[in-house]
Amino acid sequence: MAAQTILFDFTLDAGKTATAIQRQEVARIVRNELEHVFSQLELAYSMESMDNGYFSVLHENKETIITCRIFQQGLLTINVEYYLADGKEPIMSFDTGRRLENAIATKLNALSGQKIPTLKRGDVARYYPSADERIIEYDIDTLVYEARSPFQKIQIMHSKTLGNMLILDELQNIAESDLIYTETLMGRGIENYEGKEICILGGGDGALLYELLKENPKHVVMLEIDELVMQACNKYLNTICGDVLEKRKTDQYEIIVGDCVDYMKKFIAEGRKFDYVFGDLTDIPISDAPIGECWDFIRTIFEHSFQLLKPDGKYLTHGNGTSCLESLQLFEDQLRLLKPKVKFTTTKAFVPSFMEEWLFYQVTFA
Amino acid sequence: MAAQTILFDFTLDAGKTATAIQRQEVARIVRNELEHVFSQLELAYSMESMDNGYFSVLHENKETIITCRIFQQGLLTINVEYYLADGKEPIMSFDTGRRLENAIATKLNALSGQKIPTLKRGDVARYYPSADERIIEYDIDTLVYEARSPFQKIQIMHSKTLGNMLILDELQNIAESDLIYTETLMGRGIENYEGKEICILGGGDGALLYELLKENPKHVVMLEIDELVMQACNKYLNTICGDVLEKRKTDQYEIIVGDCVDYMKKFIAEGRKFDYVFGDLTDIPISDAPIGECWDFIRTIFEHSFQLLKPDGKYLTHGNGTSCLESLQLFEDQLRLLKPKVKFTTTKAFVPSFMEEWLFYQVTFA
Repeated sequence: MAAQTILFDFTLDAGKTATAIQRQEVARIVRNELEHVFSQLELAYSMESMDNGYFSVLHENKETIITCRIFQQGLLTINVEYYLADGKEPIMSFDTGRRLENAIATKLNALSGQKIPTLKRGDVARYYPSADERIIEYDIDTLVYEARSPFQKIQIMHSKTLGNMLILDELQNIAESDLIYTETLMGRGIENYEGKEICILGGGDGALLYELLKENPKHVVMLEIDELVMQACNKYLNTICGDVLEKRKTDQYEIIVGDCVDYMKKFIAEGRKFDYVFGDLTDIPISDAPIGECWDFIRTIFEHSFQLLKPDGKYLTHGNGTSCLESLQLFEDQLRLLKPKVKFTTTKAFVPSFMEEWLFYQVTFA
Repeated sequence: MAAQTILFDFTLDAGKTATAIQRQEVARIVRNELEHVFSQLELAYSMESMDNGYFSVLHENKETIITCRIFQQGLLTINVEYYLADGKEPIMSFDTGRRLENAIATKLNALSGQKIPTLKRGDVARYYPSADERIIEYDIDTLVYEARSPFQKIQIMHSKTLGNMLILDELQNIAESDLIYTETLMGRGIENYEGKEICILGGGDGALLYELLKENPKHVVMLEIDELVMQACNKYLNTICGDVLEKRKTDQYEIIVGDCVDYMKKFIAEGRKFDYVFGDLTDIPISDAPIGECWDFIRTIFEHSFQLLKPDGKYLTHGNGTSCLESLQLFEDQLRLLKPKVKFTTTKAFVPSFMEEWLFYQVTFA
C-alpha cells in the first residue's frame, strides 16, 4: 500500500508572477501542460491572496490530485499525488515526469526547474535525515518493529544493504553494517581496555558494551534510560550486540535502567571513578527541553563525566557529521568551557548507515 | 528563495477509514492536532468521493497551506507547504514536526507514521535519483550552469563535497570527485592502451578521453551528439577533462559531433577497426522512444560496436548500480543475444557522486 507523491518546482522571473493576472496566466499554462498527461483534469478549487500568491487544486477522477502554488516571488510548485495499488504501474513514470518538467519549464521560460524523484508513502518508512538535514532514502523493505516508549519512538527497519537499523524518533542510530562506528568510538587497536573500569552513558543498542567486553575490561557499567530500546535491540540487532542485553548483571558488567544524570550524581557522591566514560547518548536529549537547551544538557553530561574520571581517564564520544561545521564548533566550545580544563583529539570514519563521515572525540584532562 | 514542503504519512487500520464518516472523524482529529502548531488554521476546501477517500485544504493566513488526504485503504498523507524567506527560521522545525507526527500517530492509534525530512524547493535543485530510483539530496550550494540543448537538459551544479557535477535530464552523470568512475571504466593498470586505436561512444564530459590520452594510445575518436554538453564541461569540469574539449581534432584524437550510430555505420562501411570501443553513453537513449525500447537501442550499440572491434578487441562500458539486479540481468541478456557470441567480466567501484556501487563490463569475442 503506497501513495506516490511527485513534486515539481520551477524558478520563474519574479516579474512574471508579481500580479494576480500574471499568476492566472502561469496557472493556465501549467494546467494546459498537465492536461497532456491527465486528459480528464478538472479544477476543484483555487485561492488567490494579495501577498501570498495563487493556489489551486486540480484532479483527475478525484484519484490523482494535483496542487499548484504560485508564489509572487517567482516560485512555482506542483504536487501530484495518487494511490498506487500493489503491482500496478505508476501513473507518472520517471520519463513522463521528466517530459512534463521540460514542457512546463520551456513554456514558462523558467530560469530553472526540477522534478524531485518520486516519494513513496505509506508502505514502509524509508526517509530519514542525515546529520546536515539532507533527506536519505534507505533501501528499506520491511518494518521489523515499531513502538513508542515513554521516551521515544523506536523503529527497527530492515535495509537490503545495511541490515537491520535502529531508528529513534526519526533519527538513524546504528545498523548491522556499522561495526566501524563502534570501533571508531572506542578506538579499537589504540586504547587498551584490559583490566579497566568503564562507564557507558546511553548505549542502549548494546553494540559498545558487546565490543568492549571482548577486550577484557575489569568492569563495565551502562546507564540506559529506555528499557524498550534494549528489548528491541536484543531481539533484532544480535549481530552487533550479541547476547549482552540478555542479562542486566554479570561479574563483568551491569546495565542500570534509569536517567544517566541521576546515576552519575550517585556515583560522584560515592566517590566512584572510571578509566573510561563513554558518551553514547542520542544527539538530542530525551526531554521536552527546547532544542537550544541541548548544549546545556551536553555540558552537564561533560561536567559529570569528568568528575567520574580518574586523573588519566578518558571521555570518548561521537561528535557529528563532518559536514556539520557549526554544530561541531558549538560542541568544541562546550569542551573549552569545562573546568578543570580538558584537551581533545579527534578521529573520523564513514559510517555506512549514516551515509556520511562522522567525527569522534577523545577528551582528557589538560 | 525557497519553499519548504513537509510531508507526513500514517498507516491506519483500514477499518478506521473505510466510510466517509470515519474519514471525517480522522480529519477532525488531524485538524485538532494541526491547530496546536498553527493556531490560525482555517478550512478552505474539502472533497469526499466514494472510492477515493477524503481530501481537504487547510491554511494559516493563506501562507502555510496544508493538504490532508485520507485514502480508504487506511493511508493518511499530510503535506505542509510555506514560503521561507532568506534568513528566516523555518515555521516547522525538525523537533516540532516530530512532535506533531507523534501526536497524530498517538491520537489515531496509527500502525506506523513518518515525517519525511523537509524538502527545500526553488533555491537550487538538489534532489536526484540513484540508479534504483531512491531520492538523493546532494549538498548543492550553487547552480553553476543550466541550459536545454536540442537533446537534453544540461545542468552543472556545485556540491560542497563532490565539486562540480554534470546532470543530464535529471540524472547525475559525473562529478569532479569521480576519477574512480573513469579509472574503473577503462581498467587503469589492467588494460594497456599504448599504441592502440580507440573509439568512444558518447563521453561528452571529456573525462574518459582525458584519462586515455595519458596512456599514449595511437588514436582516439570520440562520437558525441551534444555540442552543448562539451561546451559546459570544457568550462566547468576541467578537473576531470583537462583541456581535451578545447580542440575537436589533434594528431592524437578527433571529436566528432553527431549521432554515434550514424558514424559507427560509416566506420563499418569503411572497414575501420578498433582495439577498444567504449560505451560511455547516458543510460537512456536520447530519443522520444518509449523506455521499453531502451534495450533495443543498447543492443544496436552492442552490435555495431562488435563490428568495429578487431578480433582481440574489447568493448568496455558501465552497467548499472549493483543494487539494480533486474536491470543488470536485462543488460546481460542483451549481451547473450549477440552473434558472434561474446563473453564478459565485471568490475565494480563505489562512485562518490552516485552514492552507490556501480558495475562495469569488459566484453570480448567468445
